[in-house]
Amino acid sequence: MAHFFDPGCVAEPFLTLCAEYPDAEVYPSSQFRVEWGPIFHRGRLDGSARVLVIGQDPAQHETIVRRTLVGEAGRRVQGLLAKLGMTRSYVFINTYLYSVYGSVKAKTRKDVRLLGYRNRWMDALLVDQKVEAVLALGQAADEAWKFWKATPAGQSTSLAYAAVTHPTQPESFSKGEKAKLQLATKKLLQNWSLALQTLAPAISHPDTPTPLVPYGETWAEGDRIGIPDYDFPAGLPSWMHEQDGWARRVGADDVGKRRNITITVPKGVVQ
Amino acid sequence: MAHFFDPGCVAEPFLTLCAEYPDAEVYPSSQFRVEWGPIFHRGRLDGSARVLVIGQDPAQHETIVRRTLVGEAGRRVQGLLAKLGMTRSYVFINTYLYSVYGSVKAKTRKDVRLLGYRNRWMDALLVDQKVEAVLALGQAADEAWKFWKATPAGQSTSLAYAAVTHPTQPESFSKGEKAKLQLATKKLLQNWSLALQTLAPAISHPDTPTPLVPYGETWAEGDRIGIPDYDFPAGLPSWMHEQDGWARRVGADDVGKRRNITITVPKGVVQ
Repeated sequence: MAHFFDPGCVAEPFLTLCAEYPDAEVYPSSQFRVEWGPIFHRGRLDGSARVLVIGQDPAQHETIVRRTLVGEAGRRVQGLLAKLGMTRSYVFINTYLYSVYGSVKAKTRKDVRLLGYRNRWMDALLVDQKVEAVLALGQAADEAWKFWKATPAGQSTSLAYAAVTHPTQPESFSKGEKAKLQLATKKLLQNWSLALQTLAPAISHPDTPTPLVPYGETWAEGDRIGIPDYDFPAGLPSWMHEQDGWARRVGADDVGKRRNITITVPKGVVQ
Repeated sequence: MAHFFDPGCVAEPFLTLCAEYPDAEVYPSSQFRVEWGPIFHRGRLDGSARVLVIGQDPAQHETIVRRTLVGEAGRRVQGLLAKLGMTRSYVFINTYLYSVYGSVKAKTRKDVRLLGYRNRWMDALLVDQKVEAVLALGQAADEAWKFWKATPAGQSTSLAYAAVTHPTQPESFSKGEKAKLQLATKKLLQNWSLALQTLAPAISHPDTPTPLVPYGETWAEGDRIGIPDYDFPAGLPSWMHEQDGWARRVGADDVGKRRNITITVPKGVVQ
């Protein structure tokens, strides 16, 4: 039985990009979890991508898997891509290479070294490539897009674009209040339906041509889709593909938590 | 600044080998930690390897890094390779793809599916390739070599070969008894010096031509060498390269420990 996987950065310009990333000098350790290393991407780096998704920053599951948006937020975006007929020909990058710790200062956000490196990824993925549409998740990702659009390469490139509410914004906004969560989810799904209308006409080469069906008022069956095996590195166990919740930051205090990732194999996997 | 890395399985036949690995049907979960997925290799898969090292089975650091022999045992072997002038042109594989849990039954060790898959790796690395010498670490690795040598491909291939005592055998054998450890280390280093004499004459293309210096009676400075950055996957933080002890199996009982890997960033990394 074949276990599909993503070989990752295997060719230029991505080999060089994965070697020349900015570190704590550009991403201060007071604002980012640089101690876990950068997380670059998820999806196709072989030139076959038709949609670019700009995420925000990777969290603990992404740190172990070394791919971005592999948890609940990723499954929601995977569902959005599927509504556009995109089941394989996409690529995700991060606004920030490292998980945000606290908040990001304006000076950092606009550091030319941070922008310059991110723009090299966007050049590599968007200039004279097959990408037809770009999706930004959240405000920082939207800003990343605008910074790139202001470059000469960005100005000379015409692509369908939508910025949407971050996929787990309803959860972080509502902080466990059920009514707030329902309302925020409804608003997110309206926002995502608008994005579908913007992007769908631009996608001329879907993997699986699909009639456009907007979201309802709550998450419906099929709106959240598992991350495909072919987005994970070789050899990772299937439980890392199928769910999240298996990686936590555990510690007695903030520094202790920051220094820790605890992985627990889900129940039932070990006999 | 460039952060060197190993892109991993990027070309055939390794892309297929990394997709078609045997799972719990061949490696029973009562004998192996299959729940963490297979660990395939460390080092060069691009045809440049001149030495093949056959290790035994990967442990918890290897599980996170997804490369084999990245801890203390690996540093000792790295030192042996350096004595042979090999600083880059080597490749490691595992006798077993998964960490051994308890002990391996004879029936499992000789399972034709287990042997067949491992032999495909050895065929890929040894038949009509540049490898000039093979080093086996421990008895299981020696057996793996003999099984391969009994195949038609093995019979028609002539390569220098040495089987040595496993690099951390002195520690596991002496169980904290200092005198026992000293004696076992001395014996290991004698054994390793003999292997150097067997292998060195066969290595016609060292990375760094080096006069052959045998081991002393204890580990000397330079006998243990850090795993090079270019053996690790892209983006892993440097503390994962430099030391081990950052990954432990923590739990209240055997099953709890088996389901857990706890990663702790070393002191001083997080400011």
